[in-house]
Amino acid sequence: MKNSIGTSLILTLFGESHGPMIGALLDGLPPGIKVDESFIAAQLAKRRPQGKTDTARVEEDKFTIASGVFNGYTTGAPLCILIPNENVRSSDYEKTAGLARPSHADYAAHIRYHGFEDYRGGGHFSGRVTAGIVAAGAIALQILESKGIKIATHILQCGHVRDRDFSNFSTELDIVNSRDFPVIADVEQAMTDVILEARSKNDSVGGIVQTAVTGLMCGIGEPWFDSLEGVLSKAMFAIGGVKGIEFGKGFGFGAAYGSQVNDQLHSENGIIKTLSNNNGGINGGLSNGMPILFNLAVKPTPSISQSQRTVNLTTGENEILELKGRHDPAIIRRICIVVSSLTAIVMCDMLALRYGTDRLMPDRELK
Amino acid sequence: MKNSIGTSLILTLFGESHGPMIGALLDGLPPGIKVDESFIAAQLAKRRPQGKTDTARVEEDKFTIASGVFNGYTTGAPLCILIPNENVRSSDYEKTAGLARPSHADYAAHIRYHGFEDYRGGGHFSGRVTAGIVAAGAIALQILESKGIKIATHILQCGHVRDRDFSNFSTELDIVNSRDFPVIADVEQAMTDVILEARSKNDSVGGIVQTAVTGLMCGIGEPWFDSLEGVLSKAMFAIGGVKGIEFGKGFGFGAAYGSQVNDQLHSENGIIKTLSNNNGGINGGLSNGMPILFNLAVKPTPSISQSQRTVNLTTGENEILELKGRHDPAIIRRICIVVSSLTAIVMCDMLALRYGTDRLMPDRELK
Amino acid sequence: MKNSIGTSLILTLFGESHGPMIGALLDGLPPGIKVDESFIAAQLAKRRPQGKTDTARVEEDKFTIASGVFNGYTTGAPLCILIPNENVRSSDYEKTAGLARPSHADYAAHIRYHGFEDYRGGGHFSGRVTAGIVAAGAIALQILESKGIKIATHILQCGHVRDRDFSNFSTELDIVNSRDFPVIADVEQAMTDVILEARSKNDSVGGIVQTAVTGLMCGIGEPWFDSLEGVLSKAMFAIGGVKGIEFGKGFGFGAAYGSQVNDQLHSENGIIKTLSNNNGGINGGLSNGMPILFNLAVKPTPSISQSQRTVNLTTGENEILELKGRHDPAIIRRICIVVSSLTAIVMCDMLALRYGTDRLMPDRELK
Amino acid sequence: MKNSIGTSLILTLFGESHGPMIGALLDGLPPGIKVDESFIAAQLAKRRPQGKTDTARVEEDKFTIASGVFNGYTTGAPLCILIPNENVRSSDYEKTAGLARPSHADYAAHIRYHGFEDYRGGGHFSGRVTAGIVAAGAIALQILESKGIKIATHILQCGHVRDRDFSNFSTELDIVNSRDFPVIADVEQAMTDVILEARSKNDSVGGIVQTAVTGLMCGIGEPWFDSLEGVLSKAMFAIGGVKGIEFGKGFGFGAAYGSQVNDQLHSENGIIKTLSNNNGGINGGLSNGMPILFNLAVKPTPSISQSQRTVNLTTGENEILELKGRHDPAIIRRICIVVSSLTAIVMCDMLALRYGTDRLMPDRELK
Repeated sequence: MKNSIGTSLILTLFGESHGPMIGALLDGLPPGIKVDESFIAAQLAKRRPQGKTDTARVEEDKFTIASGVFNGYTTGAPLCILIPNENVRSSDYEKTAGLARPSHADYAAHIRYHGFEDYRGGGHFSGRVTAGIVAAGAIALQILESKGIKIATHILQCGHVRDRDFSNFSTELDIVNSRDFPVIADVEQAMTDVILEARSKNDSVGGIVQTAVTGLMCGIGEPWFDSLEGVLSKAMFAIGGVKGIEFGKGFGFGAAYGSQVNDQLHSENGIIKTLSNNNGGINGGLSNGMPILFNLAVKPTPSISQSQRTVNLTTGENEILELKGRHDPAIIRRICIVVSSLTAIVMCDMLALRYGTDRLMPDRELK
Repeated sequence: MKNSIGTSLILTLFGESHGPMIGALLDGLPPGIKVDESFIAAQLAKRRPQGKTDTARVEEDKFTIASGVFNGYTTGAPLCILIPNENVRSSDYEKTAGLARPSHADYAAHIRYHGFEDYRGGGHFSGRVTAGIVAAGAIALQILESKGIKIATHILQCGHVRDRDFSNFSTELDIVNSRDFPVIADVEQAMTDVILEARSKNDSVGGIVQTAVTGLMCGIGEPWFDSLEGVLSKAMFAIGGVKGIEFGKGFGFGAAYGSQVNDQLHSENGIIKTLSNNNGGINGGLSNGMPILFNLAVKPTPSISQSQRTVNLTTGENEILELKGRHDPAIIRRICIVVSSLTAIVMCDMLALRYGTDRLMPDRELK
Repeated sequence: MKNSIGTSLILTLFGESHGPMIGALLDGLPPGIKVDESFIAAQLAKRRPQGKTDTARVEEDKFTIASGVFNGYTTGAPLCILIPNENVRSSDYEKTAGLARPSHADYAAHIRYHGFEDYRGGGHFSGRVTAGIVAAGAIALQILESKGIKIATHILQCGHVRDRDFSNFSTELDIVNSRDFPVIADVEQAMTDVILEARSKNDSVGGIVQTAVTGLMCGIGEPWFDSLEGVLSKAMFAIGGVKGIEFGKGFGFGAAYGSQVNDQLHSENGIIKTLSNNNGGINGGLSNGMPILFNLAVKPTPSISQSQRTVNLTTGENEILELKGRHDPAIIRRICIVVSSLTAIVMCDMLALRYGTDRLMPDRELK
Repeated sequence: MKNSIGTSLILTLFGESHGPMIGALLDGLPPGIKVDESFIAAQLAKRRPQGKTDTARVEEDKFTIASGVFNGYTTGAPLCILIPNENVRSSDYEKTAGLARPSHADYAAHIRYHGFEDYRGGGHFSGRVTAGIVAAGAIALQILESKGIKIATHILQCGHVRDRDFSNFSTELDIVNSRDFPVIADVEQAMTDVILEARSKNDSVGGIVQTAVTGLMCGIGEPWFDSLEGVLSKAMFAIGGVKGIEFGKGFGFGAAYGSQVNDQLHSENGIIKTLSNNNGGINGGLSNGMPILFNLAVKPTPSISQSQRTVNLTTGENEILELKGRHDPAIIRRICIVVSSLTAIVMCDMLALRYGTDRLMPDRELK
């Protein structure tokens, strides 16, 4: 509940943007998982701002594993990862203290926490906390890899530029995961231009990301309230900026006819597949053996350097906010690794629930 | 977990389409809520098939309250509602037993439950089970009404016909809730035509529904994993056919700029509001005092009477399915009341978590 | 939460003593478990009052399985068992309405539920609701039996008469389970005398029951908060009248020395066992492969027909309660089957968490 | 689940005896609670070994609050406390690596975690982890104090020496909390002698502790599975060495008659009380307004320096264990503050569930 997600494998997040550190706690890991710190570091690097399209606040993300690992392997006890905050410039925020940043949590948090919230940089609401998701997700991704399950997330849309949908699942996930700017088609330059143009106008831009999970066996999930869609969506809306999720054809179903979009079935050599995948690999809340496919709508970063009307929460007066600080003109690139990481954690939880935690150990079959 | 949702107020669903009954259990209700059985019946009537746009399977939905009510008021003990299945024609299903219906849960459930699933009419996966949501939701809606919170859901889109978005929140929720065919603008005839045309072609059609919640105080929800968006989305994906959810501008954010879509703030007479509501009333996972607004993508009913390729799960052979039975050419009208009911249950749970269960009693203030 | 227990296999109880029915819902059962209705009936018969030592309120316990079973096997969907209340004499309670029965929940419930509680026969707090535990537990016991796990509960003490502890685990569990009056040694007559003497004095008498679980593999449970002791104890305190639980030597440890009570280890033919079992089969919250052994303190039935001082909750006046009704002079015999049943449900949940739900199917190994 | 407890206020523990640190995470705290670091330090000092009756391993317990506090007050975000391990002598354990210590978790953990467990000093099973409970509990105790609720735990029994039961609740809780050796009567010397004698014989000794909670309002808890007894017992069995719990008269009920032990009710000046408190302040799982009173059986520290038979888990051979290390001859003194701290956390959770989290802020009434 609250800052935790999962039933058998549970992720809990803590920490604030300008506090001493942020952290992630994973409880329910199987024992015997080799913890590859260089892979964790590489994943964190993907989330880190880089180049001209991101914020200038760059952190080293030197993490510490505080518990749960012994001799390089998980023990089965809770694994806590701590990531110190290093490049903190709270002064940026002090100038605008009291002014609620539009489309941020500031105002709602002020009411919710009766003025005791740590408002610096969004405090516990900050995207900085997603570094913990990425670090924890690296372990989950390695568990899944040993089971033949792959996850990748690419930028499907940025402003008006659109990448193509995943279609060749045997190669495109690896391609996306190997790229600093995760796209399938040759759209990096066009998307970068969109972002730089927004930056040049002191503006920000939104986008859509698309995630695929391949290799997931049929029958994962539950009917009704623990549907695979429901569990994934609850996780994804934790990520700041996500305002929509659709599976398979999603909102495209709204104007569609059953005869066009039903996924008919076919058996070949004893393997049952659907002839199309409009349902994004999920029926009745359960995986059906086809690739899981979902899109997330990501709103433009609310922090822009243009004048905006707002309210001073301390005085109650209407004021104009002139935000300085160091902000991302678009989080769409950096969010991809967060989405894949969180998806991996959810998938491990679902598998542990179905097969038992020990089955996630590398030498066991999921059955 | 599994067939339950909620932390303080918990809804659990049970029953199968062709079993003796379906049921809903509400645990965590406050005591002292007057239970209006005629309102429950009226809500169930809205979900019931009616007229030419729905299935011919009509049930009376004669419900029994098996526990949790004494002298007409909730006691605070678990309230169980039982709804017998009456108009069951299992023979429709016996003809096609073994044939997985495309885009239904049949195949995934067969793998998940190793062939022991009750396949008749979708069994526990059947939309029939949503009658329990509506009955339980009627109680939640009455709790919310006593707190000045209103919920309504209308058909935003059916095929290519589109209703207009909620805009006048002081009147349109009541209008929608008073109509058998819940729309705002004068689109009932056009949408009915779309559905009847689909029926005449042995086809089905999808749509989009839009839900508004008004009167919700600022600060409800949690950062990260119990965000209002996350909790609502997990609930909504329980409803069969829902394949997408977006809050506020949702997927429209994908091509938007921060300067266009940020919701700037303004204070008037001590009341803080946003000048637009692109975020659908939620920032950082918390309600911000503006109306909650979300859309759900609903796929076309998978049950169509056209020939479809599929697999016989018993023999493993490829076959052609010629589905007869009694099916809805569109569930878009009937789903509206289910969505509002489930939203009400989620909202009561969130309020109980924040303020304590007793505060949901009619004579208490939420503070 | 509240009226539910379990994480992977979840039991929920509902209903009131004088309402139309009581019920139990089991969510998370594996599919493919043969449901033996005659075994359920036989278990319910053990809980039913019988002969001169129990209350004169005898119910037939004609149960209905409302969901979750198809063709005689569990489907994996929630299984709901309904048991109508038949032999209800609310008039007994109307005479003393408003008078809080000492050592019952009446006063606390009146405050907790603001006077809306169903006070008749204790309402939802009534021991009548344990019939649901027994019916649901019958299914869990059959699952465990297929895995070689046995559970039995005997009366260790009734008044001043004491049975001997379980010592021969290969025979005594079966003996206890075969007896109407579940004891090991020849103490039935002496205990019956204690109970009848209490009845003759319009009094009631307490006792201690002892439960053994054999065949449980090593390593079940969790460190800290999901310890096997913690999970079992939380379940057991749900049973009305239970006021204490101890594992193994329990309170006897208070005056003991480590050198006397440490369970030293020994390996023989590759099987590791402890040379004594003072820890009742649990170390550090985990099962250690030895029989699980725990005792429960059961207070005398609070309902006695002697004059007692109490308060009229309606008027606030001090009054004298002269309770009539039909009461058990001791619940110690009837509680045994409830304890075993609830233990079985907890054990199935722990096994499902560790190995996955499917492993509870009869043809699978727990590994 | 697993290493967490609580529904609205959730405590999670992590860390190992010989790892870099141990930690406690509190999620669901109200905002606006003043965090008194000197009180936390004082509570930790009570848990720390001191003098001749405890282990020679003394830690400074220099804690860091990593998150959730801003300007000295809780923010409402998760509060993480880290306590580094300083005085670690792993070499003590390396000599006996592979040898399962009798009555410790070693063997069960070895099976449970497939040999990947951190065996040094018991790893995550170590009593060292309870420092996190004490640090977190200090905050909970301060919340309760502002509501007029007090908690104290004294040594009721150590070996054959017995303290008297709590009887004067208005003074004895303060007395107990002010003493380094928490007892009511003049039994410190006699108990110390018992412990020192055990130490001199390379042995250890068990005991019983008794906890009282005063000022708790009537009606806290739930019927059935979230009974106050059940929730408290689940928490208490997390503490290593606890093997039994009884409320009020507890196991003394076994030979008692209803007419002797029923708690009759009496109203005076509109306040309803029971004339005795054999039920330890709880009826039907709900608090009844009387002091909560429970006892815990604590087994002798399993680590003793006498020769013990055991098995080498690496080789499978039977061996003799000659444990050196630094051990407590009795944990009965140090456990008292752990029990009070954990009780405080559970109580805050129960209050938050009933009244909502915000009501735990210092300026609000619980109603």
